Amino acid sequence: MLFEVKSVEEAVKIVKENISDFQRDSEDVDLFDALGRVIYSDVIAMEDIPAFNRSTVDGYAVIAKDTFGASESIPSILEIVGEVRMGEKAKVKIFAGQAVKISTGGMLPENSDAVVMLEYTQPLDENTLLVEKPVAPFENVIKKGEDIAKGETLFKRGHTLRAQDVGALAALGITKVKVYKRPRIGIISSGDEIKRPEEETKEGEIRDINTYTIFSAVKSLGAIGVPFGIVKDDFELIKKALSDALKTCDAVIISGGSSVGTRDLTLKAVNSLGNPGVIFHGLSVKPGKPTIFAVVEKVPIIGLPGHPVSAMIIFELIARPLVNLLMGRDEDYGAFKLYARCDKDISSAAGREDYIRVKLEKRENELWAIPILGKSGMISTMTQSDGLLKIPAERVGFSRGELAEVIVYR
Amino acid sequence: MLFEVKSVEEAVKIVKENISDFQRDSEDVDLFDALGRVIYSDVIAMEDIPAFNRSTVDGYAVIAKDTFGASESIPSILEIVGEVRMGEKAKVKIFAGQAVKISTGGMLPENSDAVVMLEYTQPLDENTLLVEKPVAPFENVIKKGEDIAKGETLFKRGHTLRAQDVGALAALGITKVKVYKRPRIGIISSGDEIKRPEEETKEGEIRDINTYTIFSAVKSLGAIGVPFGIVKDDFELIKKALSDALKTCDAVIISGGSSVGTRDLTLKAVNSLGNPGVIFHGLSVKPGKPTIFAVVEKVPIIGLPGHPVSAMIIFELIARPLVNLLMGRDEDYGAFKLYARCDKDISSAAGREDYIRVKLEKRENELWAIPILGKSGMISTMTQSDGLLKIPAERVGFSRGELAEVIVYR
Repeated sequence: MLFEVKSVEEAVKIVKENISDFQRDSEDVDLFDALGRVIYSDVIAMEDIPAFNRSTVDGYAVIAKDTFGASESIPSILEIVGEVRMGEKAKVKIFAGQAVKISTGGMLPENSDAVVMLEYTQPLDENTLLVEKPVAPFENVIKKGEDIAKGETLFKRGHTLRAQDVGALAALGITKVKVYKRPRIGIISSGDEIKRPEEETKEGEIRDINTYTIFSAVKSLGAIGVPFGIVKDDFELIKKALSDALKTCDAVIISGGSSVGTRDLTLKAVNSLGNPGVIFHGLSVKPGKPTIFAVVEKVPIIGLPGHPVSAMIIFELIARPLVNLLMGRDEDYGAFKLYARCDKDISSAAGREDYIRVKLEKRENELWAIPILGKSGMISTMTQSDGLLKIPAERVGFSRGELAEVIVYR
Repeated sequence: MLFEVKSVEEAVKIVKENISDFQRDSEDVDLFDALGRVIYSDVIAMEDIPAFNRSTVDGYAVIAKDTFGASESIPSILEIVGEVRMGEKAKVKIFAGQAVKISTGGMLPENSDAVVMLEYTQPLDENTLLVEKPVAPFENVIKKGEDIAKGETLFKRGHTLRAQDVGALAALGITKVKVYKRPRIGIISSGDEIKRPEEETKEGEIRDINTYTIFSAVKSLGAIGVPFGIVKDDFELIKKALSDALKTCDAVIISGGSSVGTRDLTLKAVNSLGNPGVIFHGLSVKPGKPTIFAVVEKVPIIGLPGHPVSAMIIFELIARPLVNLLMGRDEDYGAFKLYARCDKDISSAAGREDYIRVKLEKRENELWAIPILGKSGMISTMTQSDGLLKIPAERVGFSRGELAEVIVYR
C-alpha cells in the first residue's frame, strides 16, 4: 500500500495497471441504441462504399478525355445515348464520343469516368450535347470504395460511437453492433450528518449531494450508476454497504469521511473484504488529498472525499478514467482540455497539483479563465464554473495572462 | 418565401422568430433523471445552504479574537468546554477564552466564529488548549447561507442541468424538478435509390445513412428521434410521410432530394400541407445550399440535403439550434466553438460560408486544425474528423497558421 501518491498521472497509471486484466463482457445493440457505446471488436468493412462509381452532381457521364480542350467557343460535341435512372443499375454503356444523362447519386455507366455538370453543357438536340468545359478523370465522381474500402478497419475496439459513426455502420448494412456492456457503478455516501434529500433535516445535519452528483457524472459517461444510499460512520455499516455493492457492481465509489477518524473506518472496512485491498491512499492534489483506491476480488473501489466539490473534482481526475477503462475505452475519453489565459494571479504550494474552479469567457479570439472564489465545501462554486484550471505540481501559481490548462466539464 | 438566405446566422434568426411563440409543455422528473434536462421554471432556494455555520476542517471552534497574536512561542491559552458531534446541533455555547472540539462538517457552537486547525493546537490537559496560530473571523468556516442563500435564484428557466446542478438541487431538498418535455423530432429519408440497412441492395442503390445520423444527433441533444422511414421521390408519398410526422411530432426533419427535381417535390409537398409553409429555401453555405425551412400549423420542418455529410453539417448549423429552442434552451447550446490554427492553405468563394471537416491536433500548447480531404458525399470524412472549420462569407480562405473558428462535434 502506498500512503502518498505523487500526482494524478501516477494515480491513474496505478488504477490502469490494477484493472488491465479484468474481463469485460459484450452485447449486441441495434443501431438506434448505438450512440455513445464502445466498439468491442474491430469493425471491418465487408464491402465497398459506394458499391459503384457514383455521380456527385446533376449532369452528363462522359469519358473525360472526350472533353479535353473543350471551351465555350470550341465545345466538345458528344452523342447523348441515354439516361441513368436513380437507384437503378446503369444499363447503357458508353463509347468514345458519347454521353449519358445522370443525376446526383446516380451510377456511372460502364466506360464513363467523369461527369460534366449540367451548367457546362448545352443539348443541341435530343441526341447531341455541347460540352463547354473539360473534366478531369473521376471529376464529380466518388469512385467505388473511395469512401470506405472493402477490408478496411472502420472502427477499432475501444472506439466510442458518434452520430456519424452510426451512419457509417448503416452505410455498410451493419444493423447490430457488438459493444462493451455498460459497467454498473455502485455509489455509497457515508457520514453521520448526511440525510436523504427527501428527509427532514435538523440543525447540524446536511443533505446528501454526492449520491446525485456521482450518479449523474457516471451516467454522463454512459455507465450505469447504482445508488446504495447513505451509511453512518460505523465500521460494520460501511462494510455491509461495500459488501452489497461489490456483489452486483463492476466498481464501487464511496464518498465521505473527510475527518481523519471516518477515513480510517473506510480503509479498515475495505481491507476486511478481500484482496488485495487498499492500493493507495492519499493524493498530492488540492482539493482531494484523502482519496482511496482499492481492489477487492477484481472489483475496483474508489474512496472520494466527503466534500461535494472535492468529490466531484476527484471523480473527474481519478474515477472518470476508471469508468472509461471499464467501458472499454481510453481513460482520458471525455476530458476536454484546452488552454486559457488565467484572469487573476493565483498561487499554489509547490509539489502539489491544484485544481481551481474557473468560468470561461471569450474575449476577442482568446479564452480567459476566471477563478471562482469560495471554499471547497461550496457546491455553488461548481454550479458557477465551466471547468477546472490545473496548477501543475512543479509550479507555484500563474500570473494574470499566462496560459493554463483547463479541463472543461462535459 | 425567401429564395436565398444569406448566412447561417440569418437562417437561425428566421427559425427562432418563427417558433418563438410556440407553447412548450413541462413535466416533473426525479433527480436521478434530471441530468441534461432543461429547467422550466426558475428554481429559487427556499432555505440557506449550509443551514448553520459549518467547519471546513478538524480542529477547535473558537472566538477569533481570542487567538489574535498567538504564536508557537506565545500561544493563546483556551479552556476546552466540550465537543460538537457530527450531525448534531451544537449544544454547548462558548464565551471569551473558551474552545470546543469540532470535526470537518460540524456545526459551530453559539458565539464561536472561527475554527483553529488541529495542527496549530496542543491540548495541555483535558480542559486546556494551546493555540499556536491566530485565525481570522470566519476562517475555516462556511457561513450559514454562504453557499446558497435563501431567496436566491439558483437556476433560471432554460438552464440545462449538469451533474453539479443536480447536486445543488439535492442540497436544497428538491427531489422533483419541473423541466421541459423532450420534443419529438420526426425523421424522414427520401430518395429512389435509398434502401434500409437491413435490406439487400442492388447496383445503383445505397443504404439509408441519414435516418441514423440524424436520429443519433437528435438523441445526443436530449430530444426524442422518431423515424418515419424512407420515402420514394413521389409527391404523394412525401406528402403522406410528412403529414404522418406532423401529427405526432414537435418538428420534422426530412433529408434527400439533392437533385433539382426531387427538391421541388419536397417544397410542393410541404406547401400543400398547411400554413405558412416554406419560409426559406436555400443557404449560401457549402455544403448545404438546398436547405429548406418551413412551418406547417405550428410544427417546424427542416429539409436537409440528401448527402449524408451535407445533411449532418446543416443539422449542426440549422437543426441543432431548432431542437435546442424546442427543448427550452439557448439555440447555441452544445455548439462547442474554439480557435485553432489552420494546417493548410484553404480557399473558398467570397459571399459564401464554407465548412471544412478538420481533425484537431495539439502541438505544444496550441490546437491545429488539419483539413480532411474528400468529397462531400463521403461519410468517412465525418468519421475521420473532430469538427468543422468555418470560412466566413467575407473571407476567401485561410493561410496556413491563421487562427480559424472550429465547431467541435459533441
